[in-house]
Amino acid sequence: MTYCVGMRLDRGLIFMADTRTNAGIDNVSRFRKLFTWSVPGDRVITILTAGNLATTQAVISLLDERSKIPEERNPGLLKAPTMFQVAKLVGETLKEVIRTQAGSGPEASNTFEATLIVGGQIAGIEARLFMVYPEGNFVEASDETPFFQIGETKYGRPILLRAFDPGMSFEEAVKLLAISYDSTLKANLSVGMPLDLLTYETDSLEPGRQQRFEMNDPYMSAVSSGWRDALQAAFELLPDFTFDETFIEPSRSEVRHG
Amino acid sequence: MTYCVGMRLDRGLIFMADTRTNAGIDNVSRFRKLFTWSVPGDRVITILTAGNLATTQAVISLLDERSKIPEERNPGLLKAPTMFQVAKLVGETLKEVIRTQAGSGPEASNTFEATLIVGGQIAGIEARLFMVYPEGNFVEASDETPFFQIGETKYGRPILLRAFDPGMSFEEAVKLLAISYDSTLKANLSVGMPLDLLTYETDSLEPGRQQRFEMNDPYMSAVSSGWRDALQAAFELLPDFTFDETFIEPSRSEVRHG
Repeated sequence: MTYCVGMRLDRGLIFMADTRTNAGIDNVSRFRKLFTWSVPGDRVITILTAGNLATTQAVISLLDERSKIPEERNPGLLKAPTMFQVAKLVGETLKEVIRTQAGSGPEASNTFEATLIVGGQIAGIEARLFMVYPEGNFVEASDETPFFQIGETKYGRPILLRAFDPGMSFEEAVKLLAISYDSTLKANLSVGMPLDLLTYETDSLEPGRQQRFEMNDPYMSAVSSGWRDALQAAFELLPDFTFDETFIEPSRSEVRHG
Repeated sequence: MTYCVGMRLDRGLIFMADTRTNAGIDNVSRFRKLFTWSVPGDRVITILTAGNLATTQAVISLLDERSKIPEERNPGLLKAPTMFQVAKLVGETLKEVIRTQAGSGPEASNTFEATLIVGGQIAGIEARLFMVYPEGNFVEASDETPFFQIGETKYGRPILLRAFDPGMSFEEAVKLLAISYDSTLKANLSVGMPLDLLTYETDSLEPGRQQRFEMNDPYMSAVSSGWRDALQAAFELLPDFTFDETFIEPSRSEVRHG
């Protein structure tokens, strides 16, 4: 499993990815799931990957190879004219890889599925953030849906829904991501440290801060314990429930309620 | 979808269930998912249901019918000698219903699947709590795993993992459940109010408090807004991240990180 998040803030984009992959619980490895291409002054493109590792690695390798050898009908990541065209290219490559792998064996195609988050900026156009589906189509982040999650998305979602604010700083956004990842790591063993972080400041046209949080990272540990304590304190402070005095009395010797 | 929780506390059992069912998002209904049978002084048995509604309704109806007409090899819920035998009976009935429905058509059997939580007490034996799988087998709550969730379990799980304490009062447990349900309701439209609550006090051998929380219930609303405010305050109080001063400078005109 995997947990990746891409967020669109007023000041830019921020990405986080875990690094754990598993094929069965007895076959656990570490692989990078955050990839960046950049031409300083022209473009920065970041891709986060979730799903079948063979698929996502093939997609990243193909995109990388083709970015170096542009074709007429496939300009590659480094020459595509817009982020929309980049997302289209990524979607087509993903669909191609899944189709190729699924066509060669008896397995259902969903075994080979993967979902990607693609974000970045090309000079002269605003920064954009997309989620690309296994079918090759994609959706874009908007003011209503300013972040995307892929992989094991549910445990870490409630805090994102509650605390995300597009005006937040990168430093605050890292804090929010740290909490969201902490909830996920606690609940699903197949999402694991280290975590990769990348920021992109709008109109900088170069990669921003890049950081890897290793196991026992002091900031992540401080957030984890601080959040646990804060939740317990918040829980204590909320009013306990009070039962109504109306008691439901069983009226017969054998009663079925409902 | 559904979200049901059964918890084993030191002082007894507590159950909560939502009431929304849907067959596609344009076909949403309200159905009860919490059922109780009791013989005061002898036993209280509660079942929570998640999964295919035709399956769960058939299981509940069969269990109810058979509890009134005990057979030699099937004493029924009201005559079974132990909670273990009750769980076995429920599991066999569930397996029987799924097999019957799956055998009659071309659908895969998992379409008809359901998962149940069964808890209660029979005079002279301690209160017990089980989760029953579609295969008819079941597991029991223990000190290490003192609660079970079925249905849409993930959004509401982090707070249960963090704040559950077997020594808590029923009133505190309702507060914890209210927070867990609030996180789930915010994230998944197919889980919906009203919510049904039932408590069972150990050795009382009669149903405890039973309550239905309707939409806009004042306590649920207070927990929801109080929790939102507390989370935001807790989030503010945690230290923001500080980026290292080591900046990753792109060293070539075209750089691929990763």
